[in-house]
Amino acid sequence: MTLHSDDLPMILTATGRDQPGLTAAITTAVTAAGGNIIELGQQTDPYVQLYGCRIAITGDLAEEQLVTELDALRDRLGISWTLHDRQVRPRLVIACSAALHCVTDLLGRIQTGDLRCDLVGIVSDKPAVADLAARMSVPLLEVPVGEDRVAQEQAFAEAVASFSPDLVVLARYMRILPAWITDAYEARMINIHHSTLPAFPGANPRRRAHERGVKMIGATAHYVTAELDEGPIIDQDVIRIGNHTLSETIQLGEDVERLVLARAIRLHLDHRVMVFGDRTCVFG
Amino acid sequence: MTLHSDDLPMILTATGRDQPGLTAAITTAVTAAGGNIIELGQQTDPYVQLYGCRIAITGDLAEEQLVTELDALRDRLGISWTLHDRQVRPRLVIACSAALHCVTDLLGRIQTGDLRCDLVGIVSDKPAVADLAARMSVPLLEVPVGEDRVAQEQAFAEAVASFSPDLVVLARYMRILPAWITDAYEARMINIHHSTLPAFPGANPRRRAHERGVKMIGATAHYVTAELDEGPIIDQDVIRIGNHTLSETIQLGEDVERLVLARAIRLHLDHRVMVFGDRTCVFG
Amino acid sequence: MTLHSDDLPMILTATGRDQPGLTAAITTAVTAAGGNIIELGQQTDPYVQLYGCRIAITGDLAEEQLVTELDALRDRLGISWTLHDRQVRPRLVIACSAALHCVTDLLGRIQTGDLRCDLVGIVSDKPAVADLAARMSVPLLEVPVGEDRVAQEQAFAEAVASFSPDLVVLARYMRILPAWITDAYEARMINIHHSTLPAFPGANPRRRAHERGVKMIGATAHYVTAELDEGPIIDQDVIRIGNHTLSETIQLGEDVERLVLARAIRLHLDHRVMVFGDRTCVFG
Amino acid sequence: MTLHSDDLPMILTATGRDQPGLTAAITTAVTAAGGNIIELGQQTDPYVQLYGCRIAITGDLAEEQLVTELDALRDRLGISWTLHDRQVRPRLVIACSAALHCVTDLLGRIQTGDLRCDLVGIVSDKPAVADLAARMSVPLLEVPVGEDRVAQEQAFAEAVASFSPDLVVLARYMRILPAWITDAYEARMINIHHSTLPAFPGANPRRRAHERGVKMIGATAHYVTAELDEGPIIDQDVIRIGNHTLSETIQLGEDVERLVLARAIRLHLDHRVMVFGDRTCVFG
Repeated sequence: MTLHSDDLPMILTATGRDQPGLTAAITTAVTAAGGNIIELGQQTDPYVQLYGCRIAITGDLAEEQLVTELDALRDRLGISWTLHDRQVRPRLVIACSAALHCVTDLLGRIQTGDLRCDLVGIVSDKPAVADLAARMSVPLLEVPVGEDRVAQEQAFAEAVASFSPDLVVLARYMRILPAWITDAYEARMINIHHSTLPAFPGANPRRRAHERGVKMIGATAHYVTAELDEGPIIDQDVIRIGNHTLSETIQLGEDVERLVLARAIRLHLDHRVMVFGDRTCVFG
Repeated sequence: MTLHSDDLPMILTATGRDQPGLTAAITTAVTAAGGNIIELGQQTDPYVQLYGCRIAITGDLAEEQLVTELDALRDRLGISWTLHDRQVRPRLVIACSAALHCVTDLLGRIQTGDLRCDLVGIVSDKPAVADLAARMSVPLLEVPVGEDRVAQEQAFAEAVASFSPDLVVLARYMRILPAWITDAYEARMINIHHSTLPAFPGANPRRRAHERGVKMIGATAHYVTAELDEGPIIDQDVIRIGNHTLSETIQLGEDVERLVLARAIRLHLDHRVMVFGDRTCVFG
Repeated sequence: MTLHSDDLPMILTATGRDQPGLTAAITTAVTAAGGNIIELGQQTDPYVQLYGCRIAITGDLAEEQLVTELDALRDRLGISWTLHDRQVRPRLVIACSAALHCVTDLLGRIQTGDLRCDLVGIVSDKPAVADLAARMSVPLLEVPVGEDRVAQEQAFAEAVASFSPDLVVLARYMRILPAWITDAYEARMINIHHSTLPAFPGANPRRRAHERGVKMIGATAHYVTAELDEGPIIDQDVIRIGNHTLSETIQLGEDVERLVLARAIRLHLDHRVMVFGDRTCVFG
Repeated sequence: MTLHSDDLPMILTATGRDQPGLTAAITTAVTAAGGNIIELGQQTDPYVQLYGCRIAITGDLAEEQLVTELDALRDRLGISWTLHDRQVRPRLVIACSAALHCVTDLLGRIQTGDLRCDLVGIVSDKPAVADLAARMSVPLLEVPVGEDRVAQEQAFAEAVASFSPDLVVLARYMRILPAWITDAYEARMINIHHSTLPAFPGANPRRRAHERGVKMIGATAHYVTAELDEGPIIDQDVIRIGNHTLSETIQLGEDVERLVLARAIRLHLDHRVMVFGDRTCVFG
């Protein structure tokens, strides 16, 4: 049974407590099932002693046999594994607010096929995105900011959940989310912060960077956790700033936000990101 | 008479044969007319001995007086000058073909106000952009590729001219244009090339870069001249490439193209680019 | 009187409270004295309303006349100005400690003429640099770390002052200096911090960056003030970090430190850095 | 038998014709010999269908057993392999000419332990480096440029060979070498070219880049082959150029050369570079 072309190999990811022999066992299973490994990355995290690998497989793979062998390895060695069939497109939900530069960028990338996923819905706490969503025929749920924060969080969570997303992207959605929501989307909810964290956490990072006179500004895409701006970092980038005004600085910073968020989503969709405690390992 | 807010100063650009006293004469005229110079860049090109300056002016400027004095300087010193009223939004025409990543990026930026211009039309030699243009309510003229190259160039020029553009952007429009067209839009027609010129001029730069095993790929935005890939460079950027496949390399390269083209257009719209022979001077 | 070749123009810097007419007055004075301005940068800081300009002058300049006119402008408009004769080489003192990567880099750059200054002395609190200083025939004063902090600061200040430096570079000198020392070298003492401030101020920034899992590490060169890691930033840069070990991360970080420190010194020596309150304006 | 600390794992590299099962066989051998794989990278080159892997091994490795098993794999599967004992420091020879910025940088890095190798000799065709070599107590062989090119190449080759180097670095050695020399040091001779190849191959790349008005300049470190500027690229980097003079451009470019050359040598010394035809695969 062949599930893929050479252009789009199957991806096997596995993780577990570090111990000798994991890669030998896993690659032997792949080979026994007829797979050819065209790319393999393996890392061991020095802080949490976790093992992780990402394996790109082509060839005439006996998938059922591989599943059986990997399940046996799971029981024997305690690893977790996933075999990603990349013909199945993940369901993406975008949450946004008033600033739309990241949303429009993502919509453009989805239109041109740059991001291999299906945008199934947008959730917003501001009406700004309504026109855009209508033009793109994307379902939109508006969850206005209200006085009752708990009710609003509940409404947000229900709106997101109604789309059954595989991945939730906070594209400059500016609300802090409670742990019960972030836990539900652990390592499946990506936020873009407009600074190179841990510099300038919290509000107004661009203004504070401009006032401080930094020479580079940037952006950080990270998985969302209950600790604000503390989630595992997926990608970061910067741009050099000269004697720019604040508004020019914001504009240049938005370029970096667009780019870093899109790149982080791509890394996630390509199964290149593994969470080891508070950090990520990015294969590639 | 005040034509601007502090957020959007007037921009005076001037150029001419290099000679002592030009900046003194021009800034004295600005001061005499009540302007306050908040930013000034002046350069002299070492190859063609041309002088250029860009001056951002706030304050209660007597514009008619300044015009009179600048005209006198023009007659006396041989300089050319322009006073840019940034409340007037330039008219933009985009030309594209089958690859739409740059077009969608520009459309998103226009929607969110990132680019201060009015998109008045799109000209394409492929139908791919039709759906996108319809959704954004942007007039589209399709000029299909035909057997008669001269006729097609004529049709393209007429389509573009019908929109009376101030700026024409070739957003991966893949046809080589004759001198009679590029001359008509001298320093007003911007192309994006998918390499850091002069590396990989011509066709298929990404594939050739991947085959060569380069470690960085990039893009170049330049004004279009009759010499293919030889026009004055406005901006360039690169991204680091690891052991990526060709399709991943193309994808990462498209990120750079989007960014460099948008940045070059912004520099042009901010009157930060001056052409000195085959080179540009970029102020800022 | 000609003080310079075209390769090394004279540099005039001026600063003062922002007001209309400063650039017109200054450039008129330069022109009247026979100078030709080949490069001019002018900025107004938005936070402290200070004006600054940097002017590169060639031609047959009547220097005494220019000095007289600039003094008159100083009295009339309240500006400060300096005319930098770049034939005079500034006196550099380097302070260092146990980590020598920045010192060796600077020594190499001074040998090859990359930095236009004379290294007149090294001050160190560790003996590590002794062999290096001896090989390069550079006077070394060792100020060992003692129990009496005040005495040690006094000894450090005396050691530095004994070389009559124009510029003091803290090349990974790891002691915090009191205000009476930093004030004495205001805008003439440059430190390299091994993070992109304000991220990871204080001790062990590389280890903390590695533990946090950031994807870029960097360095910051800044003028030293009494507030630790808060001085005006001159230059910053970063490098992308993958799944590197801590020691590899430190090594890559040291590359950035070398580069950023050398670049900041060059910008300072070229009179391209102006301090506006807590920020710098860098011309170029 | 333990040959290493955790800080400095053993490195196993292997390459061969791509076929299923290579990684499974090799990692099984490592595990059987008691090794723990803490990092593994495997790639298959799409152009020449070569397989390569780099494995970092810690633990109580039975080295003789592993050697026996790898030899058996070599005979059975046709792979080549090397087990790198990193306690053995490679012998480095540097060849240089009049421009010394790269040499001084490398000398500084060797002094501070940044490069894990022993500098055993310098070969130069200009006397410029003599003083530096004497200060650092590094043996220097001068091979002056003569009228008889063949004789000079012979003298150069003999001078280099007299030091029995593991790695030869052309640190701006400006002579073209014949195939009989480059073949003798295949994948062991690194050159730094002062452009981002394939842009500006040949002579005076900085001047040509400045004349062309490019916005980024760079450098390329590559293994030397008989085809000038065509060898497999190890690393590249760039820096943004504004309205800099030619001499400033050269200075900024030299910063990149220093950095790229040092980084490429480090990658080579860490056994992270594998040559696949005209390209390299860099693990990391």
